[in-house]
Amino acid sequence: MTAGKVAILMGSDSDLEIMKEAADVLNEFQVDCDIQVLSAHRSPELVSEFASKARDNGYRVIICGAGGAAHLAGVVAAHTTLPVIGVPMNSTPLGGFDSLLATVQMPAGIPVATVAVGKPGARNAGILAVQMLALADAGLAKKLSEFKSKLTESVREKNKKLQAQVKSR
Amino acid sequence: MTAGKVAILMGSDSDLEIMKEAADVLNEFQVDCDIQVLSAHRSPELVSEFASKARDNGYRVIICGAGGAAHLAGVVAAHTTLPVIGVPMNSTPLGGFDSLLATVQMPAGIPVATVAVGKPGARNAGILAVQMLALADAGLAKKLSEFKSKLTESVREKNKKLQAQVKSR
Amino acid sequence: MTAGKVAILMGSDSDLEIMKEAADVLNEFQVDCDIQVLSAHRSPELVSEFASKARDNGYRVIICGAGGAAHLAGVVAAHTTLPVIGVPMNSTPLGGFDSLLATVQMPAGIPVATVAVGKPGARNAGILAVQMLALADAGLAKKLSEFKSKLTESVREKNKKLQAQVKSR
Amino acid sequence: MTAGKVAILMGSDSDLEIMKEAADVLNEFQVDCDIQVLSAHRSPELVSEFASKARDNGYRVIICGAGGAAHLAGVVAAHTTLPVIGVPMNSTPLGGFDSLLATVQMPAGIPVATVAVGKPGARNAGILAVQMLALADAGLAKKLSEFKSKLTESVREKNKKLQAQVKSR
Amino acid sequence: MTAGKVAILMGSDSDLEIMKEAADVLNEFQVDCDIQVLSAHRSPELVSEFASKARDNGYRVIICGAGGAAHLAGVVAAHTTLPVIGVPMNSTPLGGFDSLLATVQMPAGIPVATVAVGKPGARNAGILAVQMLALADAGLAKKLSEFKSKLTESVREKNKKLQAQVKSR
Amino acid sequence: MTAGKVAILMGSDSDLEIMKEAADVLNEFQVDCDIQVLSAHRSPELVSEFASKARDNGYRVIICGAGGAAHLAGVVAAHTTLPVIGVPMNSTPLGGFDSLLATVQMPAGIPVATVAVGKPGARNAGILAVQMLALADAGLAKKLSEFKSKLTESVREKNKKLQAQVKSR
Amino acid sequence: MTAGKVAILMGSDSDLEIMKEAADVLNEFQVDCDIQVLSAHRSPELVSEFASKARDNGYRVIICGAGGAAHLAGVVAAHTTLPVIGVPMNSTPLGGFDSLLATVQMPAGIPVATVAVGKPGARNAGILAVQMLALADAGLAKKLSEFKSKLTESVREKNKKLQAQVKSR
Amino acid sequence: MTAGKVAILMGSDSDLEIMKEAADVLNEFQVDCDIQVLSAHRSPELVSEFASKARDNGYRVIICGAGGAAHLAGVVAAHTTLPVIGVPMNSTPLGGFDSLLATVQMPAGIPVATVAVGKPGARNAGILAVQMLALADAGLAKKLSEFKSKLTESVREKNKKLQAQVKSR
Repeated sequence: MTAGKVAILMGSDSDLEIMKEAADVLNEFQVDCDIQVLSAHRSPELVSEFASKARDNGYRVIICGAGGAAHLAGVVAAHTTLPVIGVPMNSTPLGGFDSLLATVQMPAGIPVATVAVGKPGARNAGILAVQMLALADAGLAKKLSEFKSKLTESVREKNKKLQAQVKSR
Repeated sequence: MTAGKVAILMGSDSDLEIMKEAADVLNEFQVDCDIQVLSAHRSPELVSEFASKARDNGYRVIICGAGGAAHLAGVVAAHTTLPVIGVPMNSTPLGGFDSLLATVQMPAGIPVATVAVGKPGARNAGILAVQMLALADAGLAKKLSEFKSKLTESVREKNKKLQAQVKSR
Repeated sequence: MTAGKVAILMGSDSDLEIMKEAADVLNEFQVDCDIQVLSAHRSPELVSEFASKARDNGYRVIICGAGGAAHLAGVVAAHTTLPVIGVPMNSTPLGGFDSLLATVQMPAGIPVATVAVGKPGARNAGILAVQMLALADAGLAKKLSEFKSKLTESVREKNKKLQAQVKSR
Repeated sequence: MTAGKVAILMGSDSDLEIMKEAADVLNEFQVDCDIQVLSAHRSPELVSEFASKARDNGYRVIICGAGGAAHLAGVVAAHTTLPVIGVPMNSTPLGGFDSLLATVQMPAGIPVATVAVGKPGARNAGILAVQMLALADAGLAKKLSEFKSKLTESVREKNKKLQAQVKSR
Repeated sequence: MTAGKVAILMGSDSDLEIMKEAADVLNEFQVDCDIQVLSAHRSPELVSEFASKARDNGYRVIICGAGGAAHLAGVVAAHTTLPVIGVPMNSTPLGGFDSLLATVQMPAGIPVATVAVGKPGARNAGILAVQMLALADAGLAKKLSEFKSKLTESVREKNKKLQAQVKSR
Repeated sequence: MTAGKVAILMGSDSDLEIMKEAADVLNEFQVDCDIQVLSAHRSPELVSEFASKARDNGYRVIICGAGGAAHLAGVVAAHTTLPVIGVPMNSTPLGGFDSLLATVQMPAGIPVATVAVGKPGARNAGILAVQMLALADAGLAKKLSEFKSKLTESVREKNKKLQAQVKSR
Repeated sequence: MTAGKVAILMGSDSDLEIMKEAADVLNEFQVDCDIQVLSAHRSPELVSEFASKARDNGYRVIICGAGGAAHLAGVVAAHTTLPVIGVPMNSTPLGGFDSLLATVQMPAGIPVATVAVGKPGARNAGILAVQMLALADAGLAKKLSEFKSKLTESVREKNKKLQAQVKSR
Repeated sequence: MTAGKVAILMGSDSDLEIMKEAADVLNEFQVDCDIQVLSAHRSPELVSEFASKARDNGYRVIICGAGGAAHLAGVVAAHTTLPVIGVPMNSTPLGGFDSLLATVQMPAGIPVATVAVGKPGARNAGILAVQMLALADAGLAKKLSEFKSKLTESVREKNKKLQAQVKSR
């Protein structure tokens, strides 16, 4: 495991299925991470305490997933100077428009690095955290490079399969 | 002035022009109110401290105006059991859709009483606060009744003027 | 049961599954409540009669759930000076955007305290009603305080379970 | 003037500039019309009284213009079996999406014939009313036919001008 | 059957399930109606021919249901001076926003009386057509009055059932 | 001038300022073009006649600009097998969402090649028409290649200016 | 097979079910086509290489299907002067609004011919490509004419069936 | 100046007024930065070349501002493993919804850290870049801490002024 630890927070335990995508990526890159249920609205003190002490407790990046009036990432960002990544959840009838806007439209001074709604966003939150940590970790940077090559390779493979499939018709 | 005090909080001093509509209504009803700039993101401790002590400090209702990823009302609601009224501001290019959704879509457990975007919302926040206080104040209830009659009367007046105007053409 | 009675109105009996969330909360807090089917469009006189007499009939807060061009809360608010809470329903293909906007965008003079679309909104409508009643009921205020502590406790419990689950992997 | 009278109602006198488009069209067709300020929220009894008696008072069609949580047309439709035409106004920061959805998404049983947001809608409301009255008035039907021919003619004229303009460059 | 005939057109036979709601209402009111598949895009000449001759062929009102870039109602309205009612269908991933806007936002000169998206809209299209025909048919007007009373009665019945249900708990 | 002629149609003469962007591009590429005011709703026969005969009259591509319930491109596409390009106009309070959806969401069988809302879209409509004509015109294809190089060159130039500007601070 | 070859690119192999609609149409018209998985984000060099050489490799039109932040069509268009057709996919919780806007709102200079979201769009992309190729292929133009007649004929058939069905009730 | 260099790219020189907010913040923190006009669509090779070599050329974070179908951040992210921050511009009639969705909805594998639309977003992009660089730079981390304190202090100051202003009335 590397030195930089990443926190993954989520507003509700029902977000776990989505948010473990972030944890999975961090594990693939052998980056240490915690995953916690912490609600900006139901347990505000726990959130502000966690966020305020995060840097001193060894965290380097904080990933927050929340739905609806998704305030978790913004509240965490208000209490820390660590980079905060927000993953909007699609957990209301409004299709994720609510959580996306509530996460990304932060006022000047307090940024939240927002990624896509739902699963691809959770996975990308993990990768983005690795990219940040890799700024000071040449080993991670190399792994990212290999990861990127594999992405391209997998597209190439899928295309080959498709061509084979098409020809065999 | 009545016993119940109302707090009017706003995320930025540029919201004053809108939010003083709430103060004006409260003044019309002779309800005591404070108006303060407190940002959920730039001054989170001030917000949580204010909200946590609001009941003990004599506040009965808290009105919060904020734009963009409008978290102020939600954060205040997280720290108090007083009724919290949220006024979405139209202060970004997204026309108020962001602040409306970020204010109203609160998770189960922590309500925010949301009103319309902008000026009519700010005015209605004041009236709604009076309606709440009037639950335990027969004098206020009577004033609300008179206020409502005047609303109807003003429509009647405007209609009369319109009829006169139309006839004189 | 406490003195303050709450009315829960809904535009259609198909809204019952959602709106009983409000009734359940009120029951938890031992606040007396009625639940009625009353349509702003199909039975307008029933609605205006109910709303006009609500205060005299002992109601203190009126909760209204409706979908589509959701006018119920606004029409009720037009006929009473009691606080009116609107719960937008997700009952058309437009995902609740229609009922949310038709409920919240009230003109200056006639507020509707709007909560989230669907179930969380219905539950929060109940809590908001309790918060209003608690302004004049120290017992209710204490219960709200305990309720809020339990919310935090339940997040703490869920987090513990998650940590145990994560470690046992 | 023809026998069929049309009522033009609007929620606020600030809607007059838009709603007189409807009156202008009706005047062009020599259809008798009234124009009135009547708010569904500020003067609900006036609205329900007007709507309930409209048929007996000789009205044949009712045109309603309103913005925001535009309930006027729906409330009128709830109290009459005359055809009701709704004109959504663009009078809030939400660009008319609120008034459009609040006007058009009526529940089964109570239709509102909704037209476009703003001026073109107000003008079309007048034409639609004429089309309805023309069902029983051959003279009006003939005028509509001539009106339609003139529309085509005016396009033809504009095109000619454009061609002249283009050639003269 | 009454003298006034109503045409129900739809862009695709897959719209039948929704659009027969309009036919059902017209049958309830014993108003004669035709139902036809006619696409503004796939069979434009059939549409313009039908619309151009509709008045001469005895039609009084034309109801058009279409989804996506829903042009059917607008194209029909371009070829007739009869009142045209548009029913937006929810048949694409965009949830009916596309068909609603493509139906309602007609330019000045050519109105389409737009109703709600989907089934309630189709049913209301039928009722609106009856309301138009009733302008010259006292019998229909009386039936509409009875129909409206039954709507109120059915709400009253549903409320009674709900009260019984609640008490028996 | 080349053999392939392009028609530029617009629903209203107020669209000229935007739509001449398309004409300007075609002139730059020395492609012959006509520009005409033709409304799908106000002059439907002119539109269907124009579209039906367009191929025989030597047109190769038809560009259509319209706002609101923008049916022009779809109606033209219904009457021709030539490629039809749709330019959504921003001419209503709904910001172009209405014209975009009314233009692009065509049903299977009748495509409209839709470009961006407003000026950039009108300009791109012209370029897209040139790209189509260039499929059978090597000279045009070469010009397109040069045009593309100039686009890159202009970015390079702007960047140089910016660098100079930055340094001189 | 005709001389003009069409490329069908898609961002992910999960898009195949939708995008083969385009291939099916091209096969119906006996237009040669390739179908390939190429991601603008995961395999950018493959995309730019493919697009840059497409004209020299005999392609005449490029169809690109992608979801979410759908950049594929735009990136391809940036590297070629061939006409590029974009098919927005509905593959995220935002219902296709994201892919539609990310595909159609191209800046001046680089058009993407955008069609409807999902299956009808994919089918129309194929037809649009045929329309472009038919500009220089009288045989294809004739086939398009027959295709269009069949579309009308199929509507006529469906209408006949419906009439029979209605009468037999 | 610190070791970590930040690139600020923008799709058009008209974005400079907004994007210099990012440069201003970086200057405040004495972080070295370049600002460049590079269009994903008009100069794709310049973009891919810049992005591919950015790490080797000493850049640590890349900030990209673009409007409409905003592909710049995504295309840059496709060519580098450095963290990429996307700033959606409000430069079309669609109010920034297009650029926001086109920037944030990236597929799994290629994250873009998206911030708010327009000026606050540009400023926050700068701060977010500093937060990333501060992960390996204790001096920067300390400056961020002071910056955060000043934000709170400025809210406190604004509140004091407001209180004075209110009292002096």
